[in-house]
Amino acid sequence: MKLEISKEELRNFLLHATDEQLAEMIEFIHPVDILEVIHEYKADEDQIMKRLPSEILAEIVDEEEDEEKYGLLSHFSDTEQRVILEEMSSDEITDLVSVLDEAESEEVLSKMNVEDRQEVRALLSYDPETAGGLMATEFICLSDQMSVMQTLLYLQKEAQDAEMAYYLYVVDQNKVLTGVVSLREIVAHSFETLIRDIANPNVISVPAPTDQEEVARIFSKYNFLMMPVVDEQDRILGVITVDDVMDIIEEENTEDIHRLAQINEEEKVDGSLIESLKSRLPWLFINLLTAFLASSVVAVFSGTIEKVVALAAVNPIIAGMGGNAGTQSLTIVVRGIALGELTGENARRVFFKEFGVGVLSGVSIGLVVALICGLMQRNPIFGLVVGLAMLLNMAFATIAGYAVPVILKKINVDPALASSVFVTTVTDVLGFFFFLGLATLFLPFLM
Amino acid sequence: MKLEISKEELRNFLLHATDEQLAEMIEFIHPVDILEVIHEYKADEDQIMKRLPSEILAEIVDEEEDEEKYGLLSHFSDTEQRVILEEMSSDEITDLVSVLDEAESEEVLSKMNVEDRQEVRALLSYDPETAGGLMATEFICLSDQMSVMQTLLYLQKEAQDAEMAYYLYVVDQNKVLTGVVSLREIVAHSFETLIRDIANPNVISVPAPTDQEEVARIFSKYNFLMMPVVDEQDRILGVITVDDVMDIIEEENTEDIHRLAQINEEEKVDGSLIESLKSRLPWLFINLLTAFLASSVVAVFSGTIEKVVALAAVNPIIAGMGGNAGTQSLTIVVRGIALGELTGENARRVFFKEFGVGVLSGVSIGLVVALICGLMQRNPIFGLVVGLAMLLNMAFATIAGYAVPVILKKINVDPALASSVFVTTVTDVLGFFFFLGLATLFLPFLM
Repeated sequence: MKLEISKEELRNFLLHATDEQLAEMIEFIHPVDILEVIHEYKADEDQIMKRLPSEILAEIVDEEEDEEKYGLLSHFSDTEQRVILEEMSSDEITDLVSVLDEAESEEVLSKMNVEDRQEVRALLSYDPETAGGLMATEFICLSDQMSVMQTLLYLQKEAQDAEMAYYLYVVDQNKVLTGVVSLREIVAHSFETLIRDIANPNVISVPAPTDQEEVARIFSKYNFLMMPVVDEQDRILGVITVDDVMDIIEEENTEDIHRLAQINEEEKVDGSLIESLKSRLPWLFINLLTAFLASSVVAVFSGTIEKVVALAAVNPIIAGMGGNAGTQSLTIVVRGIALGELTGENARRVFFKEFGVGVLSGVSIGLVVALICGLMQRNPIFGLVVGLAMLLNMAFATIAGYAVPVILKKINVDPALASSVFVTTVTDVLGFFFFLGLATLFLPFLM
Repeated sequence: MKLEISKEELRNFLLHATDEQLAEMIEFIHPVDILEVIHEYKADEDQIMKRLPSEILAEIVDEEEDEEKYGLLSHFSDTEQRVILEEMSSDEITDLVSVLDEAESEEVLSKMNVEDRQEVRALLSYDPETAGGLMATEFICLSDQMSVMQTLLYLQKEAQDAEMAYYLYVVDQNKVLTGVVSLREIVAHSFETLIRDIANPNVISVPAPTDQEEVARIFSKYNFLMMPVVDEQDRILGVITVDDVMDIIEEENTEDIHRLAQINEEEKVDGSLIESLKSRLPWLFINLLTAFLASSVVAVFSGTIEKVVALAAVNPIIAGMGGNAGTQSLTIVVRGIALGELTGENARRVFFKEFGVGVLSGVSIGLVVALICGLMQRNPIFGLVVGLAMLLNMAFATIAGYAVPVILKKINVDPALASSVFVTTVTDVLGFFFFLGLATLFLPFLM
């Protein structure tokens, strides 16, 4: 059975169905879809939530954005909140608590049992953008002496709580990781098989302080569903699951896209006007500064422009085309760094390729503009000046497009951040300088 | 046990270890790492491959990029190739065959057994960028009458081949999907539990022609590990796994980032010079066209510039700042569309927010430039003209930044594609027009 209904229809159903209808249909509705209805129809939130059974409510809270979870929780009585918190995974509760203020987080923690509370407090001590901050503590460890049958019986007791049991970890008596075995391997082997014989000793783990971007890269590289997080002694502390990693990938991509366009990474398309202004105005002012810098180059040559006013119309073409070529190089290099495709080994080759692209684009674009401008001004020297300036600016544009993100990366600044300001400043300043400088040099032939 | 060694050390080990050492250590080395060594040290490829056992070789071929798989395969004898193909999943073989020419693909298909060959031929009939093109046919179906014990015994026979058994699908006698049960649920319940009692009837599936971007969105939304693909009668055709979806997310993100910077989506940072030129030059020429368009606006006002040459220096500031503001709006809107956060419902609000950002940024940036330029020229009217032009251009810039991608989306063009050309053309043309037009209007006060 499959439901293909709109948010509005689902809302009407959740509000107006009889209790019997709701009880019958609720298992066919995904909690994420109910969450979407609640987001869309804020006014109905209370009424809808009141009608839902508590295990569905826990799932809805689990799926909600970190910042909003507390708001959802507060719809419920203390007793209900305890039940919901009991059912949530440790990493979700950690995310929830980490965005609250002192009083709120103490309130939430006070509603948890002692053991869960200790776990969450431990998780809160990690930087949220590291492996430690991402991990959950619900994982299952085995001894390699166990048989498949023993494991299955053990799982029947333990696996209900461990939401993330795609892989089970084999540990020695000191909790040091010695192997990994997938649930699939376990069910594919006969009951008497020993875990020792099917476990893979090559278990790849990350230390807790590993940056989340690196974690995502390892997941993608090895196509993992889950990865253990370890301490310095290689003891397992927790596990990270692929769904968290997918969120990180989207987050890191949004960050890069936003930073390339000079917006803050947190800005949301449906955010408030104030948030957007806070995100963008500082960048606009930085750009204004660099625009004045470029403009002052033009001002230096105002004597030349006064004599050949046609220069003023061509000037923005040179700078703009350099900006485009620079942005192209910059983007491919920033993305190459993000995907780990630009490495120490191919850096030299990539540099010369980018420089080559700049020179060859500069020659072809330069020829065309030289021809057009030369004809329009009926002056081949005018064309020569335009073409030469174009060639020079595009060659330097691709050098800047390569060098700026690579240098930022070297000094541990995100290459996506501020790269485009630097590159367009270079292309504007150099574009104006090459063009108007050459024009001044050849001035007698242009008048 | 954990290995932290460089590619070079791994290469030396693979080449120079004794057979005994290699046999002992091979299970501690991940095939992906061996693949990286082979990529890095092309010359050693043959020698390294010859030393590895065939099950490791199959895994290495499985992990290789589609375009390179055939090259790797050809290192082996026909018999070895048959073994490797036998061990690969149907979607991997489909990807491998789909990039080959007629003769090569027939050669690969001829080395497969009849059943696998038919499956791969069926998969080849789907568009590779749809759910059908992504799915594999190795999935496991259950009847809801089975008990957990019966299921476990069934899996011991069947699960070896089905690499993707995180979820098992419950089907009726016509293969119509009726439910889903996770492997975790199965092992967490007692042996006599009936599948019927633990299966979730709310199984979300996608029709085979669904676009891969939509597939990725559903995976992210519901945090799935696997999703079934169905035909019109809701019969299960195959399954898509989360690792393929992670690749799609990276691919679609790269596409958006590249298109926003006007590079083709396939360009690689370590690609060839020719490929880069092919990817970028057409876009540069389109930009050149629009640059001439903007330049012609300046040319129209050359009489004004001739009289007040300072205008030539300020001109690029107005156009450039509009371009920055437009790009900011454009990017947030394109990303919002890609993430599904800009919907029919909030479109109006987002539009007014963007317009508001344009007006308020225009006012603040306008005031600053008006002040600076007015003081520098010792002429408040000059300042007024600059400020007013800045305000107008930034307001229109954010309108264009919103409208262009939304319109492109409406007419089913990727909003990331060509948006930036349109928006910067608008901001250049309008920027020059507003500024020089106002200057012409106020000319008597500027001279």
